[in-house]
Amino acid sequence: MRKPVILVTNDDGIMAPGIRHLVHFMLELGDVVVVAPDKPQSAMGHAVTIESPLRLEKISVDGDHKEFSCSGTPVDCVKLAVNKVLHRKPDLLVSGINHGSNSSINVIYSGTMSAAIEGAMEGIPSIGFSLLDYKFDADFMPSKKFLQEIARNVLKNGLPAGICLNVNIPAVPEKDIKGIRVCRQANANWNEEFDHRKDPRGRDYFWLTGHFQLFENSNETDEWALANKYVSLVPIQFDFTAHQIIPEIKTWKFDV
Amino acid sequence: MRKPVILVTNDDGIMAPGIRHLVHFMLELGDVVVVAPDKPQSAMGHAVTIESPLRLEKISVDGDHKEFSCSGTPVDCVKLAVNKVLHRKPDLLVSGINHGSNSSINVIYSGTMSAAIEGAMEGIPSIGFSLLDYKFDADFMPSKKFLQEIARNVLKNGLPAGICLNVNIPAVPEKDIKGIRVCRQANANWNEEFDHRKDPRGRDYFWLTGHFQLFENSNETDEWALANKYVSLVPIQFDFTAHQIIPEIKTWKFDV
Repeated sequence: MRKPVILVTNDDGIMAPGIRHLVHFMLELGDVVVVAPDKPQSAMGHAVTIESPLRLEKISVDGDHKEFSCSGTPVDCVKLAVNKVLHRKPDLLVSGINHGSNSSINVIYSGTMSAAIEGAMEGIPSIGFSLLDYKFDADFMPSKKFLQEIARNVLKNGLPAGICLNVNIPAVPEKDIKGIRVCRQANANWNEEFDHRKDPRGRDYFWLTGHFQLFENSNETDEWALANKYVSLVPIQFDFTAHQIIPEIKTWKFDV
Repeated sequence: MRKPVILVTNDDGIMAPGIRHLVHFMLELGDVVVVAPDKPQSAMGHAVTIESPLRLEKISVDGDHKEFSCSGTPVDCVKLAVNKVLHRKPDLLVSGINHGSNSSINVIYSGTMSAAIEGAMEGIPSIGFSLLDYKFDADFMPSKKFLQEIARNVLKNGLPAGICLNVNIPAVPEKDIKGIRVCRQANANWNEEFDHRKDPRGRDYFWLTGHFQLFENSNETDEWALANKYVSLVPIQFDFTAHQIIPEIKTWKFDV
């Protein structure tokens, strides 16, 4: 049987430990091709590069599978990989393993998840993986069996058109992870603050900071799952329409 | 009666004709404060700036209302405006007028719409406006009465928590616009291609291009409305969960 072709990307950059682990986990499941940003691209959302050209460099980080670094965003990487590297759709796209959570509302800011969403938009079964540990030397090994099992299921079952998966892993020892929980995006946001500072020339600048605000405690959410040491799995779609509100807005009177 | 405070931003940059028109349209409805990118930020999606500091400069482009240019993305502009300029939530946030369509799947790439979505995330009634004309000297005047009427309705009716509006205007004379149509995001995507070129030193580079693919003709979609010379109005939300697919994925067998 032909081995599946697995495209690996991320948003922390091609040298990040998270993607190095993901590559090794996926090499046990199929033929791996890596196309990932040449530098960190966190919090890039679904940005694409249209005002400048993109570079694609064949590199060898480790092993003999093909790897390419790209000067663009995670979404650029997916588009270039499909069009100019693979010349076909891969059987699976995996993005990550992100250093830090992409649960709940973080999905909208996440370059990791944008790559997976872009995959879904192009009809590729796609998964974004994130570990709840921002540290460079985070321990990715407890994630291994969960990531592989989810990837195996997607390779076997496929995913419906327009759907990808957002998988987050709690940062706890493997023996403490209770299992995989299919759930929904929790209702939350970031309460932003800005550090207001002066540069050496006395000019003002601002640095974004803030804290996460969770608005609900339902055990159907990804935040509940992660707080209770489950791997959270949220199916993600890209229809932004608020269908439920259309009838109400249709009652508005527009005097035009 | 106190005049409403209206925050104006965009993704084409503070000097773009689209935002200059929007400012003047909104000055007839309330007190306007502008916080917009100091340079074009199209296709930035929901990117935020976390790896570098942000600059905010008080400038005067025209008139005596307050305007600030920001070195960051459209989402950064909204966060800085609320936290460091207004020190309160505005009564209305308007983003645009974008030079070019943000209908259908374009919403996910759009900096204009990301600013509006960020507003909704922060509990601000928010609207993104786009004109279906990419040209610098596009005619924004036919948009005026429609934009003002939609803004008046939002100021009067408010918007439900977590909902903003995506408004697109066909590029036709005012007399040919048939009205405002409340609709949903059409199912479509971009079929990407890359121009593969050589730089003066013989190195390869790629430039993103492509064409829009529409997968349906329903008269409930924004694409249908725009093709039929209506202003399209799509209510937008930011729960990415594919709720309908959760029961199916719960049947998967995870051997962990």
